[in-house]
Amino acid sequence: MFESAEIGHAIDKETFRQQLPALREALLDVQYDLKEKADFPVLILIHGFDGAGRGETMNLINEWLDPRLIRTVAFSSPNEDARSRPWMWRYWRELPKKGRIGMFFGSYYSAPLFDRVYDRIDHDAYDREIFDIMRFERMISQDGALILKFWFHLTKDKQRKRLKELEKNPDTRWRVTADDKDNMERYDTIRKYGEHMIRLTNTAYAPWIVVDGEDANFRSLTVGRTILQAIRNRLEQGNQHVDANEAPPLLAPIDNKLILDTLELDQKMDKSEYKEKLAKLQGRLNRLTRDERFKDCSLVLAFEGNDAAGKGGTIRRITQALDARTYRVVPVAAPTLEEKAQPWLWRFWRQVPPKGGITIFDRTWYGRVLVERVEGFAQERDWMRAYYEINDFEHQLSENGAVVLKFWLAISNEEQMARFKLREETGFKRFKITEEDWRNREKWDAYKLAVSDMVDRTSTSKVPWTLVEANNKYYARIKVLSTICDALEARLGA
Amino acid sequence: MFESAEIGHAIDKETFRQQLPALREALLDVQYDLKEKADFPVLILIHGFDGAGRGETMNLINEWLDPRLIRTVAFSSPNEDARSRPWMWRYWRELPKKGRIGMFFGSYYSAPLFDRVYDRIDHDAYDREIFDIMRFERMISQDGALILKFWFHLTKDKQRKRLKELEKNPDTRWRVTADDKDNMERYDTIRKYGEHMIRLTNTAYAPWIVVDGEDANFRSLTVGRTILQAIRNRLEQGNQHVDANEAPPLLAPIDNKLILDTLELDQKMDKSEYKEKLAKLQGRLNRLTRDERFKDCSLVLAFEGNDAAGKGGTIRRITQALDARTYRVVPVAAPTLEEKAQPWLWRFWRQVPPKGGITIFDRTWYGRVLVERVEGFAQERDWMRAYYEINDFEHQLSENGAVVLKFWLAISNEEQMARFKLREETGFKRFKITEEDWRNREKWDAYKLAVSDMVDRTSTSKVPWTLVEANNKYYARIKVLSTICDALEARLGA
Repeated sequence: MFESAEIGHAIDKETFRQQLPALREALLDVQYDLKEKADFPVLILIHGFDGAGRGETMNLINEWLDPRLIRTVAFSSPNEDARSRPWMWRYWRELPKKGRIGMFFGSYYSAPLFDRVYDRIDHDAYDREIFDIMRFERMISQDGALILKFWFHLTKDKQRKRLKELEKNPDTRWRVTADDKDNMERYDTIRKYGEHMIRLTNTAYAPWIVVDGEDANFRSLTVGRTILQAIRNRLEQGNQHVDANEAPPLLAPIDNKLILDTLELDQKMDKSEYKEKLAKLQGRLNRLTRDERFKDCSLVLAFEGNDAAGKGGTIRRITQALDARTYRVVPVAAPTLEEKAQPWLWRFWRQVPPKGGITIFDRTWYGRVLVERVEGFAQERDWMRAYYEINDFEHQLSENGAVVLKFWLAISNEEQMARFKLREETGFKRFKITEEDWRNREKWDAYKLAVSDMVDRTSTSKVPWTLVEANNKYYARIKVLSTICDALEARLGA
Repeated sequence: MFESAEIGHAIDKETFRQQLPALREALLDVQYDLKEKADFPVLILIHGFDGAGRGETMNLINEWLDPRLIRTVAFSSPNEDARSRPWMWRYWRELPKKGRIGMFFGSYYSAPLFDRVYDRIDHDAYDREIFDIMRFERMISQDGALILKFWFHLTKDKQRKRLKELEKNPDTRWRVTADDKDNMERYDTIRKYGEHMIRLTNTAYAPWIVVDGEDANFRSLTVGRTILQAIRNRLEQGNQHVDANEAPPLLAPIDNKLILDTLELDQKMDKSEYKEKLAKLQGRLNRLTRDERFKDCSLVLAFEGNDAAGKGGTIRRITQALDARTYRVVPVAAPTLEEKAQPWLWRFWRQVPPKGGITIFDRTWYGRVLVERVEGFAQERDWMRAYYEINDFEHQLSENGAVVLKFWLAISNEEQMARFKLREETGFKRFKITEEDWRNREKWDAYKLAVSDMVDRTSTSKVPWTLVEANNKYYARIKVLSTICDALEARLGA
């Protein structure tokens, strides 16, 4: 969920200065339109990591907009009045009225999230409060509210650095509280539970916008533009609330930097290093899958990647290490007639391994948001909702004890061309290259965007995507195998 | 939720015989249309109480329809294969394919319900699995599935009687299992948790249909017609799935018998009996609200009723017994401008009492589904979704420790006329009668239907409606006061 917010987005000072006046003017215009014409309120929620610029952004929005038409409420611990009533009561009281913007800092998401992070509530109670929130947001959205939820993000290292900087400076030291330090210690936990919450509540009527919080210019412009665009859209739609079945919109980063652009596809590994590592990893994998404790879990491996990126070869290096009775390789092609007569995820549900079992998917359910999206085989509303459905599916597997790992094998355009040519020249590999493969190359950029969106929407700490730099096959295979071994080891506590 | 299924619906043999042939033919027609033209499957779930005719109805449907195009799956305890996978896995496997009807007996609702009833899972885990189900139903509905969920209902007494009859007869004794007896002992618990589940999962895309299971003819015709109508509607709509924001349709009982028709409005109580009882009840109420344990809960009383049914007088008899510092009476009229600028429930959320407090609403949030519905002040989609929103609101109050009681004061048309005339003749009461009151009388039947739907959709064991026969004011006041005292006593364990 946070991948694209961790690749280092930035907007230079000059660009920022150029764009700011027009943005501010447009924001003021839209704010007056809201007041004059609109029959709906705007609710903006501010969340994310300490040090990621939440407070600064709130101040900025208040500065950019007419403060008389915006109201900011910071929630901390509930007082006696609030504790004595249902937990949502105090948020109801502070809702912005129609034609106005309300900004919640530490909204109804904070209490459940931090109660979970500090173990004051368990998993079930957490989901239950999230469910309360979903019904609440659906209700006020149906009543007209436009809801925007921002998550300001920072990586662990960057958070640590940021807080240290603040502490070093006597003028800003006061900003770093004891709570901030406690939270920093729990970065991974906050990330995990925050992600869980975002996954479940990222709806069309109340979308989450994850913003890279590192660069102030990027952060501020992103927030300003997002608010502007969302209110404009609603004003144009004539106050219609969104169908709950629609998925939230995909937002391209304002600096157009995509996660696949950040990969160093050329990695080094020679054959002898590869052979040595391969033997060790295969042995490790074999031992892990024969471990007594593995009988209580299962392994699901999902392989996607550019054509000719080496999925098949990688999968063979895995199965060589496995007992044939425990695994199944499922090659995924276009659905059969029988499969088409069922909900689209049905054919994957059928292949869920039992405890102690391993299923390896050569191409996967992600076809829905890759080939079906790019080729137009699925309607937009269908592949859009698939992100939610896929997360739900994988979450159920993971809840049931499966270790689920997803690999995107990435090669460069040039490398692919070279491999295609080699395949055409090599008799026994010629069957592997088809007209379709050549056609797909023409859609290289569309696929790149689809992959970025896919990673952003479906990579979670429990079921992460591993992006594999695969121009060097040896390197790719070793990275996949060690990722699998590490994940299994972590699960088995081995 | 079950009120209207407990008033004794019946269809006589002759009517049944007359209607059956046409219904069966229509069902077969629609089944072939489904096969030939439809791109969606039909999933029918069968739930409810033992002895309420679930098995009989399933057999009947199989008899009426072409058995080659329908598939019935009865789920019992999961086998090893299923236990070794996510809990929804076995239901995914058995989904009907497009163009077919699948019937689930003991579907994915049974496991969570009975796990909760037998205390194998707690409240939070129960809600969590319900949440799993909602996402599942939304998913397959978006993929096209038409989902119909039947709850076959029986009152406790009737269930007991039915099972005894079956046991007495040597030919049917085998039908009554040890499980049935265990379940009978837990009737109230099943009713409570079943209701909770129905409340949360009664959606437009997967509606619950509660069927009075007592009379076989009524039951069978209701099910047959409901299935017929639902498939026909979908075929006509051209395979469009329903917007998740829409509420499930209101279905009038096929014998047109409404719950308000079953009240004996003329009850007897003379002044001296009234005075004696009143004094006792007021004393009891006073003691209960001063009880130390009351500080951990609160009391919300909601009054609705026909015009001139005596709400004001009843409320005064309550407040006479209360400490003025603990209660607030909130008269509800049309919303103010400030209130109109907020989500419609906002003005009621504001009035939620703190712990130890009492709020008495003279008219309530039910205006949304009564006057706003009947007079057309709210759009249908808005008052329809209000049932869900109201349940959610009251559930949050109740979860927080509030005792929430709702009273409908019912008088007859004639009694109302008499009271209106008396008011016109009595100087100091003349302000209480307006043109609008006379106009409302013309909509008597529309209100009666609205009240029935309201009770069916919002009366739950935790937050029940009490229908008060109010032609005799004395009787009505005593019934209200003793209902309040009983409920408080039960809550305080006094």
